[in-house]
Amino acid sequence: MKDDITKYQKLVDECLKAALPVQTGHFKVLYEAMSYSLSAGGKRIRPVLMQLAYEAVGGDEDISAYLCAIEMIHTYSLIHDDLPAMDNDDIRRGKPTNHIVFGEATAILAGDALLTEAFHYMLEDAIKYGAINRVSAACILAKASGAKGMIAGQILDMASENKEIDLITLEEIHLHKTGALIAAATKMGGILGKGSSKEVEALENYGRYIGKAFQVIDDILDEISTDKELGKPIKSDQKNHKNTYLSFYTVEECYQRANDLTNKALDSLEMIKGNTVLLKEIAIELINRRN
Amino acid sequence: MKDDITKYQKLVDECLKAALPVQTGHFKVLYEAMSYSLSAGGKRIRPVLMQLAYEAVGGDEDISAYLCAIEMIHTYSLIHDDLPAMDNDDIRRGKPTNHIVFGEATAILAGDALLTEAFHYMLEDAIKYGAINRVSAACILAKASGAKGMIAGQILDMASENKEIDLITLEEIHLHKTGALIAAATKMGGILGKGSSKEVEALENYGRYIGKAFQVIDDILDEISTDKELGKPIKSDQKNHKNTYLSFYTVEECYQRANDLTNKALDSLEMIKGNTVLLKEIAIELINRRN
Repeated sequence: MKDDITKYQKLVDECLKAALPVQTGHFKVLYEAMSYSLSAGGKRIRPVLMQLAYEAVGGDEDISAYLCAIEMIHTYSLIHDDLPAMDNDDIRRGKPTNHIVFGEATAILAGDALLTEAFHYMLEDAIKYGAINRVSAACILAKASGAKGMIAGQILDMASENKEIDLITLEEIHLHKTGALIAAATKMGGILGKGSSKEVEALENYGRYIGKAFQVIDDILDEISTDKELGKPIKSDQKNHKNTYLSFYTVEECYQRANDLTNKALDSLEMIKGNTVLLKEIAIELINRRN
Repeated sequence: MKDDITKYQKLVDECLKAALPVQTGHFKVLYEAMSYSLSAGGKRIRPVLMQLAYEAVGGDEDISAYLCAIEMIHTYSLIHDDLPAMDNDDIRRGKPTNHIVFGEATAILAGDALLTEAFHYMLEDAIKYGAINRVSAACILAKASGAKGMIAGQILDMASENKEIDLITLEEIHLHKTGALIAAATKMGGILGKGSSKEVEALENYGRYIGKAFQVIDDILDEISTDKELGKPIKSDQKNHKNTYLSFYTVEECYQRANDLTNKALDSLEMIKGNTVLLKEIAIELINRRN
């Protein structure tokens, strides 16, 4: 089963490689900086989920522009989050962060370029297909990553550092910061595959639940994993005085909560008639992951 | 005549005000930071040009999403350019720069949010109208502001600091850094107004020529203006060891060059049948400006 998911990850890697052709001359460094973080070996969870959701509602065309776009937007957010003025992280996925390798100015611009090119690819694709549902998918991604989505989460996260916050605020941070993009991935898959409104809603709910579970596990791993296993320094939340689920629950209670959320995610998939085997597999793998 | 242009600037200001509603609660600071720079009193040259180009080919619907989007993208680029890691400017348009007021982290995020919301507004609008030419306009803006457009110009500009460059490289910097967005403005107006391909090409050429002239004048003003007149510190190019047209030409030769470019811009408009009076007016005003 794991092999099947790897196959989808490889599909995404190939799309990403084709999306950023090797450049020469003056602008080489920008592309190098963009590629460096884009090829830094993430799990490609968002585009894989999108492709699986797409296939689950019967989609069988090429949606590589949207697969690339969501990974590019996720990657830009990591580059900017790692900057000295933000989380000031030197290591990401076991490698020096973008600004450590290319300098702060280029890292800022590489992030800006990934964000802009994500929309450029989607818009070019939507024009090629002349399909309004593709425009809708791009719009969902814009909303999820914008001022009321992912960026709002980051702002709220920063505002909450070194402060005691309540559980509702913590959930609001995660809902925006990581949840919005994961739910967008599955919703976009449903929209691109022309699923019924019920199917799209079910896929979005599935994404929302696993997004929440994902974050609970993230907080646990930051506490109990090792640097090597995680590919980045552990206990960074503690270092940055960040509030996590462990401020409210024990590790055991967190796992219980992640399990409950995963079950809700699995339930959401019940009304999808197409193949949801790998979507279910991923939901279960997410809570058993070690990095 | 000047009054007419002011009327268009006011139209843009009203669109921008409506695009960013006042927010309360946790996310207030993000909107404040976005609004701060967006309302910092720019000349709105790009959206005004877009609206005029749109009307010149007979457009008479609402394109406020695209007017806002190009100004939001221009504004985000200024916020990020001013950051300590980039140009490290404290003053812009006579006011403290975004990161001076809100801190670096919020300034980075406000820029990211303006860029993302620009696409969000355009995509929502394109869906509402169900019009593929509106998607095309958004795509033109994505391309012009992306890795082969505005951001490429910024990368090349940075790479050229403290170095002697030739005139071709200098022109390549400007073509990307400022020219791309100005030419996109007039091209988008033509596309949105469903102009013929000849009209769209003429409008894009007009934009390209005045964009070049604009930059030549910018370099002159940085040298010969006063801080008060310019609203930002003069001789910043010299301070940042930047190459400008004055590295190659005298002030007088620069003005001659700006005049030649303006004449070419005016010539481009000849084949447009609609009203181009204000487009001509702007081309002439741009080279006579003092700030």
